[in-house]
Amino acid sequence: MSPDLLVAGVDVGGTNIEVGLVSADHQVHGRAKANTPTGGPAEVLDTIAELVQSLGDRPIAVGVGIPGVVDQGRVLTVPNLQNWTEKVDLVDELGTRIDVPIALGNDANVGLLGEWVAGAAVGVRNVLGLWMGTGIGGGLILDGRPFTGSHGCAGEIGHMVVRQGGALCTCGRRGCAEAYAGRRSMRGIATAMVDAGRSTSLFAIRDEEQKGNLTSKVWARALDEGDEMAGELFDTAIETLGVAVGSVVNLLDLDLVVIGGGLAEKMGSTLADRIADACTPWMLQPNPDLQFVVSTLGDDAGVVGAATLGRALAVSA
Amino acid sequence: MSPDLLVAGVDVGGTNIEVGLVSADHQVHGRAKANTPTGGPAEVLDTIAELVQSLGDRPIAVGVGIPGVVDQGRVLTVPNLQNWTEKVDLVDELGTRIDVPIALGNDANVGLLGEWVAGAAVGVRNVLGLWMGTGIGGGLILDGRPFTGSHGCAGEIGHMVVRQGGALCTCGRRGCAEAYAGRRSMRGIATAMVDAGRSTSLFAIRDEEQKGNLTSKVWARALDEGDEMAGELFDTAIETLGVAVGSVVNLLDLDLVVIGGGLAEKMGSTLADRIADACTPWMLQPNPDLQFVVSTLGDDAGVVGAATLGRALAVSA
Repeated sequence: MSPDLLVAGVDVGGTNIEVGLVSADHQVHGRAKANTPTGGPAEVLDTIAELVQSLGDRPIAVGVGIPGVVDQGRVLTVPNLQNWTEKVDLVDELGTRIDVPIALGNDANVGLLGEWVAGAAVGVRNVLGLWMGTGIGGGLILDGRPFTGSHGCAGEIGHMVVRQGGALCTCGRRGCAEAYAGRRSMRGIATAMVDAGRSTSLFAIRDEEQKGNLTSKVWARALDEGDEMAGELFDTAIETLGVAVGSVVNLLDLDLVVIGGGLAEKMGSTLADRIADACTPWMLQPNPDLQFVVSTLGDDAGVVGAATLGRALAVSA
Repeated sequence: MSPDLLVAGVDVGGTNIEVGLVSADHQVHGRAKANTPTGGPAEVLDTIAELVQSLGDRPIAVGVGIPGVVDQGRVLTVPNLQNWTEKVDLVDELGTRIDVPIALGNDANVGLLGEWVAGAAVGVRNVLGLWMGTGIGGGLILDGRPFTGSHGCAGEIGHMVVRQGGALCTCGRRGCAEAYAGRRSMRGIATAMVDAGRSTSLFAIRDEEQKGNLTSKVWARALDEGDEMAGELFDTAIETLGVAVGSVVNLLDLDLVVIGGGLAEKMGSTLADRIADACTPWMLQPNPDLQFVVSTLGDDAGVVGAATLGRALAVSA
């Protein structure tokens, strides 16, 4: 197969779906983007198919990263997409719309894969990807290979429990890292604090920026402007992620932590340094080799990683 | 090399050092055992060398499992051996006493390796070993290969934080699983509860059994006889291990959890079932394939696993 044949990488997020045509050298040659439909899986699949077709060139395969739990081609749960409540055999159902091999992965797994083939983690042996967004996602490279576990569900660092009996998480359990550090949870806490009489500029910034939600941009601006409540909530988020990452380092003895997602792009190495500092006290052994960096591909990490999955499938098919 | 050539496997525990001569089919052909010296590393190394020599046949290699953090042949910390406070290059120093290739691993890593080559985990792709003893140790098989991380330090499930700000652990941090479920920590809590006026048969059983400590046997008997305080402490230990194992399952998407250590041998599948039940509420996805079993090699897991490390070194040398 010619290495110039293009693969479509699809990054499904809570707000947008981004698609890119990616060559074998991981360059993105064409892009398309749409709002993520809120009407459920059929609308999402239709939009993916339209975006891929809008790119003109027919790809040899499609790779899709989705913000949920995936199991061998099926999407089990997608907590952060509206009206997507059932299990969906995405590979089959997208295959009826686009007749090429289709690969599926979790968005954070796929984002880290992008960083590992072409970004901040190239050639590194043991890597944790920590993806900060609506939820907290994770991905792993172990012994120099992507690791996705027995069913493809590995990487859920957001649902490691750091405070047993702690805050209620959007997954229904208590004390998960995501309950303190996921944007959806943080918005819930911010809303409750405002209801209780605290003041914050977060919601005013949201309206000024004409965002429907407390996005990374809204958080970054509130933190930048010294909003006290945003600062407190963000401190707790970082502290909690430090505990979770420290626990993972004790379990897996890693070389590198790559932090991705919108906030990583906006805050850069400041964010990586803060998580490194929050992690250090929890590490059983000082590990001077362990590095913390932010994603270098930014928004493209998901597209490039998803295309890598698609290409691997096309090559092995 | 003939497969009949024997390798010595050495399992260094807080109480005893056990040595066995192991053939390529993982059978143990000769054994020796001594109390673990309390005078520090030189005494421990002398005892290992004497035990190996006492077996008669000269092994082609020696593998050693030690209850501490190991890093490429060096022992970094050994919190549960008396008067061992410094870093020791065990491979070099034991090599001056026994002139064959010497391999070193963490005791729980090595115990799981034994189970994986010849016990409860043969052929399983993604496995967590949970070793309950003076501390809480762990080992990992990932994608069908032993996983020890970038420096050989992986597996420290006992030092995953499950209750941030919780009980003080013997490692100096707070809220680690070991702070609730390691025997050394449990003894500390039991002692404090007795000082505060609670009653328990734990210490009377210890004296009756002529043990110097609250061993697995003492705990198993107290639980069996319905001692209320032992039951409460053990319930908390199981609950905490359930949180830690649930977090690891969410992170690594495993097939099997093997539980080892003295208590596993004494309680059998009851212990595995209790940990499974305690883990289930924390799992992000129900995983009907995930199994929980106790070690089938028992005390021999460490010896067989250590010998496997030694044999791998001899074969690759």
